[in-house]
Amino acid sequence: MTAMDQRLRELREQIPQAAIITDPDVTESYRRDRARDPQAGRPAAVVRPTSTEDVQAVMRWASKYEIPVVPRGAGSGLSGGATAVDNGIVLSTEMMRHIEVDPITRTATVQPGLINAEVKRAAAEHGLWYPPDPSSFEICSIGGNVATNAGGLCCVKYGVTTDYILGLRVVLPDGTAVALGGPRLKDSAGLSLTKLFVGSEGTLGIVTEIILRLIPEQAPSSTVVGSFATVQDATKAILDITRVMRPAMLEFMDRASIGAVENSMKMGLDLTAHGMLIAQSDSPGADRARETEFMAEVFRTNNATDVFTTDDPEEGEAFTAARRFAIPAVERLGSLLLEDVGVPLPMLPALIEGIEDIAAARDVLVAVIAHAGDGNTHPLIVHNPNDEDETARANLAFGEIMDLAITLGGTITGEHGVGRLKKPWLPKQVGEDVMELSRRIKSALDPHSILNPGAVL
Amino acid sequence: MTAMDQRLRELREQIPQAAIITDPDVTESYRRDRARDPQAGRPAAVVRPTSTEDVQAVMRWASKYEIPVVPRGAGSGLSGGATAVDNGIVLSTEMMRHIEVDPITRTATVQPGLINAEVKRAAAEHGLWYPPDPSSFEICSIGGNVATNAGGLCCVKYGVTTDYILGLRVVLPDGTAVALGGPRLKDSAGLSLTKLFVGSEGTLGIVTEIILRLIPEQAPSSTVVGSFATVQDATKAILDITRVMRPAMLEFMDRASIGAVENSMKMGLDLTAHGMLIAQSDSPGADRARETEFMAEVFRTNNATDVFTTDDPEEGEAFTAARRFAIPAVERLGSLLLEDVGVPLPMLPALIEGIEDIAAARDVLVAVIAHAGDGNTHPLIVHNPNDEDETARANLAFGEIMDLAITLGGTITGEHGVGRLKKPWLPKQVGEDVMELSRRIKSALDPHSILNPGAVL
Repeated sequence: MTAMDQRLRELREQIPQAAIITDPDVTESYRRDRARDPQAGRPAAVVRPTSTEDVQAVMRWASKYEIPVVPRGAGSGLSGGATAVDNGIVLSTEMMRHIEVDPITRTATVQPGLINAEVKRAAAEHGLWYPPDPSSFEICSIGGNVATNAGGLCCVKYGVTTDYILGLRVVLPDGTAVALGGPRLKDSAGLSLTKLFVGSEGTLGIVTEIILRLIPEQAPSSTVVGSFATVQDATKAILDITRVMRPAMLEFMDRASIGAVENSMKMGLDLTAHGMLIAQSDSPGADRARETEFMAEVFRTNNATDVFTTDDPEEGEAFTAARRFAIPAVERLGSLLLEDVGVPLPMLPALIEGIEDIAAARDVLVAVIAHAGDGNTHPLIVHNPNDEDETARANLAFGEIMDLAITLGGTITGEHGVGRLKKPWLPKQVGEDVMELSRRIKSALDPHSILNPGAVL
Repeated sequence: MTAMDQRLRELREQIPQAAIITDPDVTESYRRDRARDPQAGRPAAVVRPTSTEDVQAVMRWASKYEIPVVPRGAGSGLSGGATAVDNGIVLSTEMMRHIEVDPITRTATVQPGLINAEVKRAAAEHGLWYPPDPSSFEICSIGGNVATNAGGLCCVKYGVTTDYILGLRVVLPDGTAVALGGPRLKDSAGLSLTKLFVGSEGTLGIVTEIILRLIPEQAPSSTVVGSFATVQDATKAILDITRVMRPAMLEFMDRASIGAVENSMKMGLDLTAHGMLIAQSDSPGADRARETEFMAEVFRTNNATDVFTTDDPEEGEAFTAARRFAIPAVERLGSLLLEDVGVPLPMLPALIEGIEDIAAARDVLVAVIAHAGDGNTHPLIVHNPNDEDETARANLAFGEIMDLAITLGGTITGEHGVGRLKKPWLPKQVGEDVMELSRRIKSALDPHSILNPGAVL
């Protein structure tokens, strides 16, 4: 019996109700998230706690032996934020699935293992809405959403995850559980610790309960779709819209992603177009028609070859689904390096054009989809992993696109997090002083660096 | 020449452009904010920097000699967050007044000394809106708003200060200036440091530049006012509204505040009423009329004796102004201890009734106004400062009201901050573990505790 076996036995005795899995056939599937980090280690065990108390026991144990703990939600992360490390454990929150909706305070108290779509459905039962909607909302966990401060399609109007977090229960590295915030719309008491943990990618503590702010259900939306012969026309239309109004959605697809989606879904998309925009308005009453017609007019003014408008939510959803399907559709063309770069809106045309230049210079296919209304793009770098040279060029393009975003005053990640894949670029974006400040906070909270070591910082 | 004189001379040489004031006649007016903390110290100087670089020089100097620095905005704080300390300096941001609005990214880059109303006006010139609206919006600074995570009347629908902060420039205690976030709606790169500084009341760093998110200008609003014979009827009406819709404003005044306002403004308010509600809808199109009529109907169902509805924004503003005037109006009755307690909405009736009980038991007048729609109340404890016994009873009531809010799962401060006045109650609300966590972060950022010592923690 190894020392680790002995320690795991000790942990088992403390939390007999939690699953502690050491079978390598099972732990294998917990080594990586969707970023498929090739450097992923082999965890000594996967632990699946069911309660805050379980997580406290795990962290006390891990602290005692200084065992690395990688927290994991649904494993849908795209930045290697849940990459296992050798001789550490993976703490999966998948069994923590309780939810309680309080329609009077308009909040939901949720355990982290629930899927985003399940949270939305539970809220909808009370006529309420949890807005943040990552494209992966049917497979990503709400805990993972908190860890990465996830975004989505509706954020252009409704904001990101942190805007909906009123309180958290967090287990610190030493096993202490703290309750931060609560079901109150206003709270200025003490430091804003709740918000500090949002987006911290499991490096500061483990979130075991989340108090979400809900809002009244969304009004029905109308959809406008336009195809553009040039990327320039499409990006001009984006700025012409956002300068004047807030659409409920404003998504962009470039030629490669239109082609990949059309190839899979046969929707009759214009394969000659170099840009497609899908926009929605959900404003109440006559404003919806007014906004929709305005956006259609902007599309036409910017030479859209084809403008389609519908008030039918299901027809609109078909286009949204097409946009959401872009990543899997492009993935059929090869392995993907998935970017998440964002820029201040006026820089969006320069970003998209710069990405085209990088793709041409490195001779790799880069399909671009974007939450265009908030300047957040997802360039998808396609490569054949068996082609060493192409893979090397794809990796170069991956870094160059982040460098470009930084040069344009942007961010290397709008909603997916830094994880391990983008770590080398974080200092370039935020600067050495901010890195130093971040490390001071990390050391204050996790002095032995046992929580998600190697991620972000 | 004292050692401090020598040090101030050294500082003057480094920042000749910044005003460094030692004249006691002038520094006297910088000793206290509106909380009029009787324990306020006598600062060695008031320093009024004009730039981030000035603030860096001040902090390098203060760090070198471990001189306490109390940051100050417009001095309108109500919790003693800007109380001077002996032999320290007061750093006033009043001369830092630059603003730049970018209508395309829909952001404003603002120095902290600007008044909230000035920010609103600058945004309005571009058809944009900065929502947070403390009642003191015409005299409070945007830097102070960030320091306390200030709220206001529209927060029930539009959120609080932190929801509008995209980026900050912050000078740390050692003089390092860091740029956090930026004019991007989405950014998941690294720890959420921007949000950590919001609401930190000058204890972690000095904010020298703020990037604010703006939204399209508010649609015109309709107003409903109702008078209720009992507090119970009024609070019942509040819950009947918030359970179903999000008003743009939902304010409460109790009998004492109605009386004080009527006495000053002669508006014809119902002096027999024990509660008055002022509600607004700003939803577009037909929804505004529908929501306004719905709220009027809820008022009537809950036995409102008098329901008045108007679509005229100016008529509506008269009632909002009356509500905003409640604090100065009640202040004419005596000195005030101003509370800022908040509770989860279903607890609001219990809070208001409990406050009545405390007022009766302590035989002091407590006038209650509330941002009722978000559960945030301002009990105003009136006392004659020359009446020692009454002042002692008022102080007891002050603590008991915070204890009550904590018991009801609430907060001791919804939007004013902890400052020095509420510090003894903070551990009761958040618990010793959260205090310890907060102190660890404070020490990591301000190891010599020179920033706003004695405040919050």
